[in-house]
Amino acid sequence: MTAVPTSITDGRELVDRAMRASAERLDPWTRRVVAYHLGWTDEQGRPAAAGGKALRPALALLSARAAGIPAEAALPGAVAVEFVHAFSLLHDDIMDGDRTRRHRPAAWTVFGPSAAILGGDALLALSEELLLDEQTRGSHWAARALTAATQRLIAGQALDIGFEQRDDVTIEECLTMAGDKTGALLACASSIGAMLGEGPTRLVTALTGFGSEMGLAFQLVDDLLGIWGSPGTTGKPVLSDLRARKKSLPVVFALNAGTDASARLAELYAEPGQPSEDDLREMARLIEAAGGRGWATAEADGRIASAEKYLAESGMDDDVRAEFRDVALFVTARDH
Amino acid sequence: MTAVPTSITDGRELVDRAMRASAERLDPWTRRVVAYHLGWTDEQGRPAAAGGKALRPALALLSARAAGIPAEAALPGAVAVEFVHAFSLLHDDIMDGDRTRRHRPAAWTVFGPSAAILGGDALLALSEELLLDEQTRGSHWAARALTAATQRLIAGQALDIGFEQRDDVTIEECLTMAGDKTGALLACASSIGAMLGEGPTRLVTALTGFGSEMGLAFQLVDDLLGIWGSPGTTGKPVLSDLRARKKSLPVVFALNAGTDASARLAELYAEPGQPSEDDLREMARLIEAAGGRGWATAEADGRIASAEKYLAESGMDDDVRAEFRDVALFVTARDH
Repeated sequence: MTAVPTSITDGRELVDRAMRASAERLDPWTRRVVAYHLGWTDEQGRPAAAGGKALRPALALLSARAAGIPAEAALPGAVAVEFVHAFSLLHDDIMDGDRTRRHRPAAWTVFGPSAAILGGDALLALSEELLLDEQTRGSHWAARALTAATQRLIAGQALDIGFEQRDDVTIEECLTMAGDKTGALLACASSIGAMLGEGPTRLVTALTGFGSEMGLAFQLVDDLLGIWGSPGTTGKPVLSDLRARKKSLPVVFALNAGTDASARLAELYAEPGQPSEDDLREMARLIEAAGGRGWATAEADGRIASAEKYLAESGMDDDVRAEFRDVALFVTARDH
Repeated sequence: MTAVPTSITDGRELVDRAMRASAERLDPWTRRVVAYHLGWTDEQGRPAAAGGKALRPALALLSARAAGIPAEAALPGAVAVEFVHAFSLLHDDIMDGDRTRRHRPAAWTVFGPSAAILGGDALLALSEELLLDEQTRGSHWAARALTAATQRLIAGQALDIGFEQRDDVTIEECLTMAGDKTGALLACASSIGAMLGEGPTRLVTALTGFGSEMGLAFQLVDDLLGIWGSPGTTGKPVLSDLRARKKSLPVVFALNAGTDASARLAELYAEPGQPSEDDLREMARLIEAAGGRGWATAEADGRIASAEKYLAESGMDDDVRAEFRDVALFVTARDH
């Protein structure tokens, strides 16, 4: 398994403290839901340690370093992007009917959908509030970028839900969806520290491009793991994306490839009811036969290369650039 | 029926145009849900005219006049408060299982809960975005006030949902809930134009106090109408709040009054299953007997008087002050 880069582990404690302090601003009822969702407590409200890897805050802190400001100055941005991410997961799990999140029952199954809706709403409002604590050009820049990214996140989820009802989704639409749903917030996370530090536009633009490309690579890898990943590492049942007949990127590529396998896959995707275990294995085989696995793998590699090109254009110090590169390679590694 | 004050009708077209222009920023799928929810279209997306009275934007424009800036300069604030209000209604209807809104099917019953969740999310993000279009001291002030009001709105809804599970709600808690759920956003609406106009703190403080008190009066009247209002004017079935065993202000007062009627009312509220029509009439009678109706009526009058006192302290011109007063009397009139 690829080692977790130090840029992800280093700032974790700092970010964790800032997140907990910020969550104190929530009303007690909503805070209970949020604390569970973020892995700080268990179902009974007892302390737990089940948090995610906090990739977005790590990127935010790195981008602050790229702009030459201390990590502390970028904390509102680091917390805000993580809260927007948490908001979207809280709401998405309800919409998608996903009962499990990070090996634990999803928040809405524990506290009910109403509490999870409100918890997400509160996190979204709080994320903006954090960036408005100060009135600087940098915090205004960051707040605008965050609302824009949030709008794209929502648009991407809307598109994704729409896909489930359609059998004519193109690969371009699917890439747009992934860019909105995953790329936009990672692009914001990768640049928000530089915005708060009022860094040069060239740097912010390059970091935004980096995050966007890395986001697409990340989604492609996630989609590959959703079909061929092992349940032990993904935390989801084997072939889970196919079980839900998700129109993920490799699937949409395969459906549009015009091969015999594509036609057979389309039939299996259109069948009503739960697919059998045999059907699931057949679907995975057809996606591969129609070129979906090969395309997604090559596309992910291309996006990583493009992300690295953005880093090269950013004008930042070699050591920070190397750390950004390590994070990109880590989150797009196919062994976790 | 009390006549609609000109301050509510006058700015309506201006605000309507600004709202529609702002909604263009939403993705098409989410915009469809929002356009229906705001009364611009029917279920099939055809043009309709079913909007609300746009009380909050009218207050926002009035507060701009109070600070001596043109209505146009306060439009982002007027639209933002209405969008936050619309966001909360979209989500509340899902949480409360309310199938009707303004005499029409609630958005979630037409487009599904997922679409309504996303539509609300998008409106919330957009409302902040609108206030970040410019970087002035006034827009920063307004944006902060709006996120704070939104947090209270969410806290109020959380408290309200919690009430349904409890039989020990105090009248103080119930007033806190109403202040958060209804007062906070009306307070923000009543002052946001003055913030955008960078008016004096004294004016903003007075208008915030006015809106907060008017909001409580408004909620008290709404609660009275939810029990004793006629369905033709409220748009809800007769005795609807009692049917849902809502712990509204007159009910909570009655439950805590310590009378025989209070005890009998508590029994009826605790009974499982749908209350019969006879039970509903008995509940209404008991609330009145325990003093709930009289208290809520007097409390509403007291809040209106307090709102007027804030207006007197605001230092604004007599004509604007008279218009604020007209709006307060209109929205707390008990004949609509």
